[in-house]
Amino acid sequence: MDFEYFMNEAIEEAKKALNNDEVPIGAVVVLDGKIIGRGHNMVETNNHAFEHAEINAIKEAEDYVGDWRLDGAILFTTLEPCVMCAGAIIHSRIKTLVFGAKDVQRGFAGSILNVVDDGIFNHRVEVVSGIKFQECKELIDNFFNEKRKK
Amino acid sequence: MDFEYFMNEAIEEAKKALNNDEVPIGAVVVLDGKIIGRGHNMVETNNHAFEHAEINAIKEAEDYVGDWRLDGAILFTTLEPCVMCAGAIIHSRIKTLVFGAKDVQRGFAGSILNVVDDGIFNHRVEVVSGIKFQECKELIDNFFNEKRKK
Repeated sequence: MDFEYFMNEAIEEAKKALNNDEVPIGAVVVLDGKIIGRGHNMVETNNHAFEHAEINAIKEAEDYVGDWRLDGAILFTTLEPCVMCAGAIIHSRIKTLVFGAKDVQRGFAGSILNVVDDGIFNHRVEVVSGIKFQECKELIDNFFNEKRKK
Repeated sequence: MDFEYFMNEAIEEAKKALNNDEVPIGAVVVLDGKIIGRGHNMVETNNHAFEHAEINAIKEAEDYVGDWRLDGAILFTTLEPCVMCAGAIIHSRIKTLVFGAKDVQRGFAGSILNVVDDGIFNHRVEVVSGIKFQECKELIDNFFNEKRKK
């Protein structure tokens, strides 16, 4: 599997968030080599605190397969998931989580805690990190640097 | 505030889930003494792993106020929130979480961990537990006992 190809697709989603002045995070869900769900951060746009990139991508993938169980699916996301999204990844039975940049302050797939692969739940998620991390990190860092300037 | 009154409303939501053969969990969001969001578990009905009672109640409340920030709101839920819902409660800036029964195996508001009030995040949520816990616990226990019999 070409991890960089799919992470680029997640980055494209993050750029859609950026264009809406949302924190630029994007995600795609891949099953059998095909993207079946895409999502980006839409918290401000839709006024829903839960509309993070990962949940929106998972929702689209679940609608595609007609099942809340995404057995065998791989989630690519530009930033290490927060506590809520880490939970959604477990609940939807994602097989593998691939993320770009770490979120050392709020990440729950290794930074603060690892809830996706620590044995609390029956289901465990494989984790791959650091794919195109520089580009993913710059997207976020530049966004907050610009906000601070204003 | 009459905690039992609002927990009864959350229990009514849980019974709606039960009628749909969903794990019976219900929640309501209260602002200024008024219910502004109601939700029950709809994972199987809508094939979305994230459609837990708490997230559905928060979504309805956010639509009501037209903002993802539910400042000053109180969330009543029949069961201690899971990791995903604990995260959604933090993200939506709920002021107070009131839950009925503990979830000793999966609860993230004190049982496994307390992510809503442990200082990881800028926002902290007050937690009140044990309101009508016997009724809330029996709803869940009876559901799983029936499932095991079949």
